[in-house]
Amino acid sequence: MKRILVLGSTGSIGINTLEIARTFPDKLEIAGLSVNNNIELLEKQISEFHPAAVAVCNEKSASELKKRIGNTCEVLTGDEGLLELTRRDNYDILLSALVGFAGLAPTIEAIKLKKRIALANKETLVTAGEIIINLCKKYGAELIPVDSEHSAIFQSLIGENENNIRKIILTASGGPFLNKSELENVTVEDALNHPNWKMGNKITIDSATMMNKGLEVIEAFWLFNLPKEKIEVLIHPQSVVHSMVEFCDGSIKAQLSMPDMKLPILYAITYPERYYFDTVKTDFKKISRLTFFEPDFNKFECLKIAYKTIEEGGTAPCILNAANEIAVEKFLAGKIKFTRIPEIINDALDNVAIRHNADLQTIIECDSTTRKYLNKKMS
Amino acid sequence: MKRILVLGSTGSIGINTLEIARTFPDKLEIAGLSVNNNIELLEKQISEFHPAAVAVCNEKSASELKKRIGNTCEVLTGDEGLLELTRRDNYDILLSALVGFAGLAPTIEAIKLKKRIALANKETLVTAGEIIINLCKKYGAELIPVDSEHSAIFQSLIGENENNIRKIILTASGGPFLNKSELENVTVEDALNHPNWKMGNKITIDSATMMNKGLEVIEAFWLFNLPKEKIEVLIHPQSVVHSMVEFCDGSIKAQLSMPDMKLPILYAITYPERYYFDTVKTDFKKISRLTFFEPDFNKFECLKIAYKTIEEGGTAPCILNAANEIAVEKFLAGKIKFTRIPEIINDALDNVAIRHNADLQTIIECDSTTRKYLNKKMS
Repeated sequence: MKRILVLGSTGSIGINTLEIARTFPDKLEIAGLSVNNNIELLEKQISEFHPAAVAVCNEKSASELKKRIGNTCEVLTGDEGLLELTRRDNYDILLSALVGFAGLAPTIEAIKLKKRIALANKETLVTAGEIIINLCKKYGAELIPVDSEHSAIFQSLIGENENNIRKIILTASGGPFLNKSELENVTVEDALNHPNWKMGNKITIDSATMMNKGLEVIEAFWLFNLPKEKIEVLIHPQSVVHSMVEFCDGSIKAQLSMPDMKLPILYAITYPERYYFDTVKTDFKKISRLTFFEPDFNKFECLKIAYKTIEEGGTAPCILNAANEIAVEKFLAGKIKFTRIPEIINDALDNVAIRHNADLQTIIECDSTTRKYLNKKMS
Repeated sequence: MKRILVLGSTGSIGINTLEIARTFPDKLEIAGLSVNNNIELLEKQISEFHPAAVAVCNEKSASELKKRIGNTCEVLTGDEGLLELTRRDNYDILLSALVGFAGLAPTIEAIKLKKRIALANKETLVTAGEIIINLCKKYGAELIPVDSEHSAIFQSLIGENENNIRKIILTASGGPFLNKSELENVTVEDALNHPNWKMGNKITIDSATMMNKGLEVIEAFWLFNLPKEKIEVLIHPQSVVHSMVEFCDGSIKAQLSMPDMKLPILYAITYPERYYFDTVKTDFKKISRLTFFEPDFNKFECLKIAYKTIEEGGTAPCILNAANEIAVEKFLAGKIKFTRIPEIINDALDNVAIRHNADLQTIIECDSTTRKYLNKKMS
């Protein structure tokens, strides 16, 4: 029995993870759940999966849940409750599907307990890649990517020597604006209309700006220990080839399927094994056509900025991440135009000091400084 | 230093193998060469690669070569000379690129010496798959496929559990007649005009009839120990995805590159390592489009017949192979129409007795009986 602690259980990845747990009741068990404030859905999840404890970050929602469920299940509260849930040694796999910077601290707790980290939270590696990778080495914790792209690369590398990587090719759907030449006046609704993947709002906007791919480039930089020159982005609108690895002999390996997050989630749980699962059916006779082309770095400036922050190093990706979260929030609230997103990120990178050899405290401060700088400027 | 014995050194695979040896003079050495009768090219290969000995199957050509090169290199003669060359224990890898049934006996000699067999000769497994696989197990010889499709599957299976295979998908270019509706009056020239691969005449005609893919299905049946229901053929005209494996969880792995036989040859030599080799460049931005569709089993009846012989078992694939060799020979000689090829094969399968639990002698007899039956009938 594998025991899974799902952080962010009411988001898209969390829901998919529980669907997998439902499919394998004899093999998978839910040790705990965490949510920000969606206690309606959490209550249903508790009654189905019977976790020992849950964490609710929003204090008011936590009180409300306690009233509703009584002693059925222990309810931990706030950020400290989330950390406490993660520190309990009653699980094997941390499925980290929190949104944004909030994923960092609990992931570190799980690493210290030598747990397998199934990582769907991009920001953990983007903001604190070096710290996380070093901690995983120090404690011997496994870090298995859940993003479909990184899972594809991870799977393509199984049994291969990592020194033989010539480059990795991260595929990108290109998002809803791939074929739109003018992005000045796109609406929130336009930007939330992703062609292939049904995901949360933040990541869907990140797909529309291609910052999502930029964050993935930074993530790949840490996960696979490769210089940025060996990380290529390739537009592939069908999202069937999830990513590829080119080896030193010129041979390329790829992992493919119809787009469905359940596959990389399942793999991160079962690796190195595979479970029999027939929900996702891929029929190439029906797909019939896969296309590929170069990304337009001028149109999708966020992608260019992401590469730049790798070069700058230190806390540059942390500033990028915080500025992007603020910018996306403002765009979703209808306060800024879509094309302001990269401008805001560049503004922060130009004005918040980049710190090198940063420890966790420095990263937390850098994140906070960036948010304060932008919130003040834009208020 | 890896020492390679190249059987069929003047054919397309042989020439590519020597090009690889030329690229890695510090790592690869040519222990021996064999040809049927092309001593012009063999003489050049001897002076470049200095093998200890060569075998020339055609006796007259062998005498001529001896006159030309004197004591430079030992020349063995005839089928027995070829076997003697293979029995000499001065090589690590047998690269078997002989055409047709002739590849069987020398491969067995190399298996008995526990050599690595880099197998480009399809007929070895098609006619005697069970014997070859059992001999490899008995003697502990490695069998690494050189066909681009089987190499792709082999590479996709690296580090994976073979019990997790749901199915393998052999891709097929579809050959020169993919989009031609009427095959009755195609010429030899039409049939030799393969869109993607430059290969020998026999295999090029086999591509045009899709018997080549049929032989590969039978080969895959033995190499990967899968029932025929788990072996699928998918038309993919660009020949960039060399083949795929679908695992039990629905995840698919593929190996890709621009079509160039040097890659699978190199891999069969270097496995489990990969050498740095930058001759084959694959740029998806230039490829831009990959297409896939279902094969037409009615138009390409040879493919259907191949699946049927797996079901019939015993020497049925051996009869198919011999009948196909005869039919292709007659077609190349302008003696029969293209559409007669599957008819001739079906005729042989209907009239030559299928033997089960066949030993090598039985297979040799079955091959010979089939050829005699057809030659008599068609004389």
